[in-house]
Formats: sequence, structure tokens, C-alpha cells
Amino acid sequence: MNNRFWILMLAIISLPHVLRAQDTAAHVVKYQATMNAVKYVYGAAKPVARIAPGDILDTNTIDCFGGAITKPSDTLAMAKGDNPLTGPFYVEGAEPGDTIAIDFLELTVNGPQGVGALAPGFGAINPTNYTPMLNSPLPERIWLYPIHQKEDTATFEAHDSKFSVDIPMHPFIGCIGVAPAGGEARSSIVPAEFGGNMDAPEASVGNTLYLPVNVPGGLLFIGDGHAAMGDGEVAGSAIEVPLHVRLRVTVIKGQKIDWPRFENQNEIMAAGIYRPVDDALRIAFTELVGWIHSDYGLSDLDAYELLSKVAKIHLTEMVDPNYVVIAKIDKKYLPPRKH
Amino acid sequence: MNNRFWILMLAIISLPHVLRAQDTAAHVVKYQATMNAVKYVYGAAKPVARIAPGDILDTNTIDCFGGAITKPSDTLAMAKGDNPLTGPFYVEGAEPGDTIAIDFLELTVNGPQGVGALAPGFGAINPTNYTPMLNSPLPERIWLYPIHQKEDTATFEAHDSKFSVDIPMHPFIGCIGVAPAGGEARSSIVPAEFGGNMDAPEASVGNTLYLPVNVPGGLLFIGDGHAAMGDGEVAGSAIEVPLHVRLRVTVIKGQKIDWPRFENQNEIMAAGIYRPVDDALRIAFTELVGWIHSDYGLSDLDAYELLSKVAKIHLTEMVDPNYVVIAKIDKKYLPPRKH
Amino acid sequence: MNNRFWILMLAIISLPHVLRAQDTAAHVVKYQATMNAVKYVYGAAKPVARIAPGDILDTNTIDCFGGAITKPSDTLAMAKGDNPLTGPFYVEGAEPGDTIAIDFLELTVNGPQGVGALAPGFGAINPTNYTPMLNSPLPERIWLYPIHQKEDTATFEAHDSKFSVDIPMHPFIGCIGVAPAGGEARSSIVPAEFGGNMDAPEASVGNTLYLPVNVPGGLLFIGDGHAAMGDGEVAGSAIEVPLHVRLRVTVIKGQKIDWPRFENQNEIMAAGIYRPVDDALRIAFTELVGWIHSDYGLSDLDAYELLSKVAKIHLTEMVDPNYVVIAKIDKKYLPPRKH
Amino acid sequence: MNNRFWILMLAIISLPHVLRAQDTAAHVVKYQATMNAVKYVYGAAKPVARIAPGDILDTNTIDCFGGAITKPSDTLAMAKGDNPLTGPFYVEGAEPGDTIAIDFLELTVNGPQGVGALAPGFGAINPTNYTPMLNSPLPERIWLYPIHQKEDTATFEAHDSKFSVDIPMHPFIGCIGVAPAGGEARSSIVPAEFGGNMDAPEASVGNTLYLPVNVPGGLLFIGDGHAAMGDGEVAGSAIEVPLHVRLRVTVIKGQKIDWPRFENQNEIMAAGIYRPVDDALRIAFTELVGWIHSDYGLSDLDAYELLSKVAKIHLTEMVDPNYVVIAKIDKKYLPPRKH
Repeated sequence: MNNRFWILMLAIISLPHVLRAQDTAAHVVKYQATMNAVKYVYGAAKPVARIAPGDILDTNTIDCFGGAITKPSDTLAMAKGDNPLTGPFYVEGAEPGDTIAIDFLELTVNGPQGVGALAPGFGAINPTNYTPMLNSPLPERIWLYPIHQKEDTATFEAHDSKFSVDIPMHPFIGCIGVAPAGGEARSSIVPAEFGGNMDAPEASVGNTLYLPVNVPGGLLFIGDGHAAMGDGEVAGSAIEVPLHVRLRVTVIKGQKIDWPRFENQNEIMAAGIYRPVDDALRIAFTELVGWIHSDYGLSDLDAYELLSKVAKIHLTEMVDPNYVVIAKIDKKYLPPRKH
Repeated sequence: MNNRFWILMLAIISLPHVLRAQDTAAHVVKYQATMNAVKYVYGAAKPVARIAPGDILDTNTIDCFGGAITKPSDTLAMAKGDNPLTGPFYVEGAEPGDTIAIDFLELTVNGPQGVGALAPGFGAINPTNYTPMLNSPLPERIWLYPIHQKEDTATFEAHDSKFSVDIPMHPFIGCIGVAPAGGEARSSIVPAEFGGNMDAPEASVGNTLYLPVNVPGGLLFIGDGHAAMGDGEVAGSAIEVPLHVRLRVTVIKGQKIDWPRFENQNEIMAAGIYRPVDDALRIAFTELVGWIHSDYGLSDLDAYELLSKVAKIHLTEMVDPNYVVIAKIDKKYLPPRKH
Repeated sequence: MNNRFWILMLAIISLPHVLRAQDTAAHVVKYQATMNAVKYVYGAAKPVARIAPGDILDTNTIDCFGGAITKPSDTLAMAKGDNPLTGPFYVEGAEPGDTIAIDFLELTVNGPQGVGALAPGFGAINPTNYTPMLNSPLPERIWLYPIHQKEDTATFEAHDSKFSVDIPMHPFIGCIGVAPAGGEARSSIVPAEFGGNMDAPEASVGNTLYLPVNVPGGLLFIGDGHAAMGDGEVAGSAIEVPLHVRLRVTVIKGQKIDWPRFENQNEIMAAGIYRPVDDALRIAFTELVGWIHSDYGLSDLDAYELLSKVAKIHLTEMVDPNYVVIAKIDKKYLPPRKH
Repeated sequence: MNNRFWILMLAIISLPHVLRAQDTAAHVVKYQATMNAVKYVYGAAKPVARIAPGDILDTNTIDCFGGAITKPSDTLAMAKGDNPLTGPFYVEGAEPGDTIAIDFLELTVNGPQGVGALAPGFGAINPTNYTPMLNSPLPERIWLYPIHQKEDTATFEAHDSKFSVDIPMHPFIGCIGVAPAGGEARSSIVPAEFGGNMDAPEASVGNTLYLPVNVPGGLLFIGDGHAAMGDGEVAGSAIEVPLHVRLRVTVIKGQKIDWPRFENQNEIMAAGIYRPVDDALRIAFTELVGWIHSDYGLSDLDAYELLSKVAKIHLTEMVDPNYVVIAKIDKKYLPPRKH
């Protein structure tokens, strides 16, 4: 996908329910993340910067291994922690009960190679900490993916045979979330109501992410950049990369949501994040039925029936401690938005 | 989607590993299904017709309600049974341990309207027979969908507000399966190793379905035509229609598969069919890893890693007694096929 | 447990709602099972004998390996099929919509040793056909358990260290079921609505099992005797033995049940049989709430609340294609039975 | 169960691997909990008291509703938060990588009545936040349970019919846990690796609980006393009571465990805490196999086989955000402990 096209599109769209500053006029908050200042939990922490609604945040993320894996001979034990997070960013005016809207303006891979890894105890079809088995674990493995910025690709190179293939890049942010409700603090490998390690390719240029605000300022964290990822992230990693990130944060006052949501010009999308996948799906679809009912005016039963005919399901990952299902409907199937 | 385009494409493709008769020269077996001859289980039964490998089967399916629902005032109690099946068809030369390949040549909606229904005890976000709850059931509801053949659409009309919208048609066969292994006979509402009620939009023109042969002749059954369906079929029904069906059946001697598979020009696709969705996904991906390994030569671990970067997941339904996940990879990411 | 004590108790009890012939006067139907006549599916089949309500059936079961495993050097490949079933027995007067009640009068281990086996692809904490993983399978293993009839024990002997220990016997029938509804035929390794491979230690002397009747005569099958088993049957086998079996079958006319139930002097017990365990539990408890409501007169919500305070849960197995949860309540916590 | 018997038994037992001060000589740390000082997350917080290994902690817990429900007309909205926690207690000498052992010496119901509640969105067979459905919720309901200290019972009184019955008390602590690893802070309604809302009747007099230490001092929290509870806690509550609590805390230096464990004179017990129940069971049994292997010397496969013959499973709750399975084996089936 051509990012410039989407940036142009974004300049043209004006989603009706949110006031946004003009891109050209927007204040830009710059913050340079380093391993010295990263966090490993979503929760209360001293903000690294403050953003006013409509500001553009220009920052970067370090890869999920803390940049520790650079050669074929490196091992996962060299990573100091999983998913180091840039932030938190304090969003001025965001109060519990509000929603913050994040527009992904630009995501660029920030280095010459990505990393894929088979980590014993992590993956959808090998035993894990939460689906343990007595069998011998799969061996640890590292794959390096050369990044080709011009071609917009990363290259998979097989270990056990002579084969390589280019994969188109679709840069997105694997970890994006806020401080959880109720005084909780959650690990950077966990996705849940507060967002977090959703590994959702929807967290990319052209889309808006909505997150519930649970504490004053919201406290936004980002990390775990991906150059590309398959549905389910089944072996436990994407093409893991550092990212340069430009995004805009807006506050929707007085609108409470229970789970993360995405939106773009064409679709509304509700995330359900739990285990098993069955329950993640149930959360996503009850949220989407509720969204259609409240914003588009269909009755719950009409919305349910319509989704049975036209919904899309994206199972983003089944490898983190919670699983993520995103239920979607194309807006062309909906009545005009009520407000 | 324009069916003629795909028919043309099919004439051009020649998947290398299966011998197929020329379409033009093919023998056509015609069979007219009626409610007098339908079956409600996949299992041993007197064949209604015999097909030679390469023959074209020209037949029809009755809708999942046995055609009983025609007016808004009709009730689900009027349906005599769920998913009446056309068949079985005996495929000459198919023996246990073989695989049958089914090319979907033409699927046409065979009537003026489709039916959607909310059946208490059926659905992804209401209690069911297998996820029962103490709450009052949702009310039974029927939606009728006028079919517009020229426009290739069916129309959703809301019950509780003035709203209607056209949905593009994508006709496919919800139920397609063979007699199960081990002398089992399974209800027409169940999908499993033998195929069955997979509710897979992949069972449509342009694709090939592979099913394991468990008994002499395979004994192919089809039914439950859909004009269109959302991922997950969440409220329990698609746009339910009778279909006119043309498909071609081929036998792949000596190739044993454990679960249904799909293929088209661009993709190989492995189905996993069980509960919870987690396990359906595990089945689909272990099958797909095995398929890539045996036919394309990547090691299991390389295949696993590659899928983590480029796989697609289609959760076709989460409402039948077993759930269906189809794991896919684009062939452009694979080495040349070995055989 | 001393079987004679229970036989005595049974002679004393007379559950009020079922007419039973006096044990002393009862007609005894004898049937000797052999491998030549066993079945491997629950479904329509020519009855091997007919039983009138109140008759005592005196028969035997062959072990789950068909008696093929007798020495340490034997392998699972030597078993011709899993869970050979004795039967079916046609119960006179049993019609669809009725319930049959089975009193277990006497179960005796019918041989000098039992067998335990680790079968790759079977078990709760190793990959299986329905929870597959890429890891190397566990190795196949056979343990033999000498039976000591006088001491009422079987001996576990460790393979990898010098250790042995005696396990008290609790003989029960792992497989007991009837022909399924809707013309289905199900494998002898599957438990479901029709009973089947429930691996429930509740299927033992002192208890009554209720099964729904789906076809005329019910068609009762039994097999898969166990000398003892742990909750969950986690490694995939119990102490597998042939049994001598004496049981009495009664018909409860016009009483329809949806899932198997057990009862003894002290408890009523509802079985839920599906996947995941969560759903098996939901089935068991909604059944038990319904039973309490209809037979003991508590409202659904009072029954639900009371169960939250005093219920017992028995997870009998989590290794077969469906899992089994039995929800129980002691009758001392219930109002007098209404009928 | 007579608590004095167990206190006596505890005086007699001396589990060989842990040094414990003599009960008679033990220092007693007294702490009076009030709603002013309760916590609602397991995590870093200023200790309310410090305990030396071997000390006896004499304290109390407030009921899960914060004592807000006292009359039939009270509503759940009156509770300020769920499961207010007493603590944290700093255990001297406990360092990350150690284990703390908690002996339950005395638990006494601390008030004249208990409370049961049906809270919409909480329960095993009604929709919840994590298994949501579109159906109307069950109504909120409160049941009050008069406590009879002399008879050691609490009385269930039906709402919808004239029926009451006495339930024997088995007082235990529903919430007991330490600060989680990795800087997380978890809600008092969640059980997980750190213990927490396990709702395990095993947390009672006569048993020892082992918890992993993740931060200096461990930071022990307790709350959510129960007078009695059914397996599964299916409707979402036990007989909820305030408790007077006496327990002794010991530190086992250098012994790391991954999940909570229980032990008494007769049994070792491993807890698995996650969703679905299938995975909770897998965790519990892999932990128990590992425990048997390391402390009793059986090989993993021998331990697995033996558990398949003699294990006990206790599903304590299926209503909290994670579910709890405790896998047990009687020590009489094990070789002598190695150390």
C-alpha cells in the first residue's frame, strides 16, 4: 500500500463526529524513544510528553526484542524484555469516561532488517505457558528479514532449503494502549480492554483507533512495530521492526466505550480481546451490534441479522495471553449515521 | 463477482496434479432433487446417481428449510428438517484412501427470494444447545430477501426501522460432504472431517474442494445453498436459497487427506473444523504446514514461520455444532510445487 | 468400595417414580459377547438380544483394545479398533421420547490384568487429533496392571524407576449409550447426547443411568470396562479391562430427557458432554437447574443460587472427542420430590 | 468439618522441607482491617504490617461487597468495589524466586449472616462481560444466609417458594495472593499466577498454600471470605462473609514455582488458572507432573500415566475472569519424597 495515497485521503476525509485540527496547522510533539526510558507495563507512570487534542505526535518505537537481535547467532535470551513501550503520553483534557481517537498518519520501518523468531512456549500450534503440554518444545529459531524500502518489501529466507520470497510491507503498531481501569497495570505482552498488544494490522495508516480513557490524560503507550504479519501471527512473531511513527490524537468527550474500536472511511470495526477465540468473537460482535444500534439506528436484532449476511472477521492473533478478533461491517450496508 | 469470468478462467487453468476431462467434451449427469428424495445425514445410503471422474454433475439443492418458509408469517416449525441434502452421488473409482476433487463450475440462485432467520438456540451471541444459558431466548424472526438476478444482489429489509440495502450475491454451497469414516453417519447440520455443513463461501465458482474418501464411491451430498453470507454466519443463517448447481468431480487416487482442503489459482487453503475456534485453527494450520511441507518442500519450521508473516484466516461459521476455520496462503509466497 | 454392600442397598431402595420388577423374580437375559459380534458405532444395527423392562441383563464387555494387548512388547497397532461394543440390546416398549433407566447391579473385572496406554495423539496434556501441535509426539507406552481380586486392587508399576503401588478398584463401564437421534451413527470413541464413551465412574454399582430413547427399542450398547480411573482420564486411558456385567433396564414412558443423567440414593447428577469443558459445564448445569425445577419445584433462579452454594462437579474425561462434566447435588439440599 | 481437629492435626504434622516455628512459641502479628485501608488490586502498595517467617498473622477480611449488603432491599450498586483486600503484608526475607507457604490455622465467620447474589453479567450459565450475549440479562437478586455458629451451618431460604435448608459451613478465603511479576497490578476479581481470586475451598484450615514471590516481601493480600461454596461457584457467589483469620506464613528460600500450589497431610495439589477450563486443566496437570517428577522422582511419563488412574480434579470456579482447576494426587500413591 502506498502511504502517501492514504495521507492524502486522510486530508480529504472529515469524519463528522470529531473535531480535528487541520493537519497543516497542527502542532507537532516530537519525542525520541530510547531503551533507557521504555516501559514494560501499561499503567500509571510519569508521562514522557504531553499532547493536546489535535496535536501530531512524531516519535519512534523500538522493536519487540529491544533491538537485541541483529545476527543469525543471536538468541532470544539477549532481549531484556518483551515489547518495550514508548511513552506514556499524557493527552490533555482526556478524562475517565472519554474516548481518545488516534489517527495513524505515517509509519515507516526504521532500520535495515526485521526479525522473526520461534520462541519455545509461544505460538498457536506449539505448547505455550497457557496451553502447556508434556512434549519436547520446538527449537528456538531466528529469521532475519532484509528490508527493501524502495520496493516496499521484506524478504523471507528459508533456513532448511534454498528459497526466498519478498513480502509486501504493511507497517503497523503491534502494541498501542492506555492505562487500564481500576488501578490495574498490565504487561506489554497482554492485550485487553485497554488495547495493548493487539497485534492488529488495523493500527496502520488510513485508520482511526478509539481507546477508552481510564485515568486522567489516558496515558498512551506504543511499541512492537511490525513490517508485515499474517492473520493469527501463528508462530508468535511478525516481521518485527523499529518504526518511525506519526499519529494524531483527539479526545471525544463524554463518549464511553468498553473495548477498542477502529474506523476508516469504509468500515466500522469492533475488537474483542479474550480467550478462547469464541469469547473474543462474542465480545467483538456484541460491541458491533451495540455500535450499529446506537450510531446508525438499526435495532439489535436487525443489526445481528445484517451482520450474519455481510460482516467481516479478522482474527489478528491467537498467540498472546489474550486473543484478538475484530468484527467489521462496511458502512455502505448501514443507514446514515445519526450523529 | 461475475460467474462467467470465473468459468472462463477455469477453462484456462489446468492445475498440474489432476487429470481432468475437457469441459466441452465432458459427460453431464443430470439429477433433479426433490423433497421426496433428500437425506438428513451424511452416511451410507442408496446413491441417487453415479458419476464418472471428470463428469459434470448438473443438479439442484433445496434451501435449508426444505422450501417451507415463503411468507413473513411462516414459522421455523414449518420446516421438516434442517439442511435437506441432495444425493448421495456415487463417484466411480473412488476408494477409501483416495481424495475427490470438486470443481464448482456454476452456482445460480434458483428462486425469487432468500430467507434469513433468527432461530432461538442458534447463533454466536445468543445461547444455543451447546452453549446454553438460563436467560430468556431471543424471539424467532424471519427476514425475506428479494433476489435481483440482473443486479446480482439480494435486498436486506430491516424489521424495526425503514431501511433496506442491497447485498451483492456470492452463491455457494453451505453443505457439501461425503460419507464419514468408521461407519459413522452425521447430521446435515454438522461439519467435520468429512466436510458437511462447513458454510464455507470457498465452496463456490473458481475453487476446487478436496474431500477424503472413506467408503467406496465416496457418496457425495450437497445442500444448504447460500446467496451471500457474512464471516462467522453469526446470527445462524446466510441468505438461504435453492441453487442450480454444476460441478465436476475428479478422483485423486492414492492421496489421503485428513480434513477438507480448498484450492484455486492463487491459494491453497486447509480447513479445520471443531470446537472451540482455537482448536479449529490449530487443525487448519497444522494441515496447512503439512501441505506446504509435502507439496512445496519447505521444512515444517520454515512453513510455520512463513505463515506467521503471510497467512490468511477465514472463520466461516461459529454457529454450527462444530466451527470452521480456513487457513490460507497465497501460492506466490511458496516455492514451485514438487509434484 | 464393597460391591455386595451396594447390591444390598439396591435391593432396599425403591426410587418412587419408576416401576421395577423385584430383583429375585426378575427374568435374566444372558448374552456372551465375542469379538466376532462387537460393533464400533452407536447406531442402527440388528439387536443381539431383546430385554423386557425389569429384566436383568447378564453379559460381558471386551476391553477397549479388543483384548489385543497382553504383554509389555505389544503395540497399540495390534488393536483392531477402539472400544468394541457389546450389543445392541433392544429394550421392549422403549419408544422415541421415552427414557431408559439402567441400574448397575454387578460389575466384575473379568481377567488377570488391566492395561494402561499412552497413545500418541490422545491425552489432555499432549497434542491430539483435535488439538494438534507441530511438536514431536510423546512415545507410545504400555503399562500392565496386575489385578488382585481378593484385595480389590490393581497394581501400577513404574517403567522408569523401581516403584509400584496398589490402586483400589472401582469397576465401571466407560462406554454405555443408545442409538443417536436423527439417524446418526457415532463412533464408539465419542460421547454425546446419546451417552457413549462418557468414561463416567458414575456408571457403576449403586447408581442409575438415564438415557434418552431415540429409536424404537433404544438399542443399548456397552463396552470399555475400567477397573479404576482418575478424574479427567488425563493420559487417555483408565485401567482398561474386560468386565462381567449385570444390569437392569427399565423404561420410563413419556419422559423425555435431552442429555444423560445419573441418580443414586443421595444425589441427582446431570451430564454435559461437549467441547470446550466450559460448554460441557454449561450443558450440565442448565440440565440440573431444569431437573430441580421440574421435579423438586424450586424456581430456576433459586436452583441456580443453591447450586452455587452446594453443587459438586465431576470432570470425568478431557481426552475423548467430546469432554464430560457431571453436575451434582445432594438430595438433602432439595425439597421433597413432586412426583 | 471440625476446625479444632485440623488445628490439632497441624500441630502434629511437620512437613519435612520447611522450617516452621512452634505454634505455641510463635509471634503473633495482629492487624485490624477496615474499609478505609482496603485495596482493590494485587500490586505494589505500602504494607499495612510486616510478618517474620513463622509469625502468626491474626487479622480479618471484609466481605466481597464491602459489607454494603445487609437487608433484602439492598442492591449490588451499594457495594463500592468488589473484593476489598486486607493488606498487603510484607513478609520479611521473601525475595523474588522464593516461595511463601501459608498455613491456614483458623477461619471463623465474623458476622450473623452471609450474602449470595445474582449479579447480571456474572455467572457460568448467564451472559457475562467476557461471554456476552444479546439476550436480556437475568434479574439482580440477593439471598441472605443466617449463620448458626453452634450448628456450624448457614441457611438457604428460597425466594420463590417456601423452602429452606441448612448448609454446613466450610469457611475459606476466596482471595489470597501476592504482588504479580513484571510490575503488573491485577484487579481483586482476577485469579492468575499470583493467586488472587481463586475461590478455592482448599484455602482453608488444614491446608498449606504455596505462592510464588515476585517482589521483595511478597506483599500478601487476603479477602473475599466464604462460609461455603459449591464447585464452580456457578451463579457467581458463595455464601459471602467477613472472616476472622489466623494464618502462619513461612518462606521457602530459593524454591521457584510458576503457579499456586496447595498441600496437606494427604495430598499435593497444583492450581491451573486461565481460560477456557481446558487450558486451566492443562496448566494444573503439567504443574502436577513436574512436581511429582522433581519431588518424588517418577519420570514424567510414569507420573502422567499414574495421574490418569488416580488424580482428582477440583474445578473451583468458572465465573471469574480466569477459571481455576486444581489437580490433586493422594500421597499414598507416590514414592517417598526425595527432599
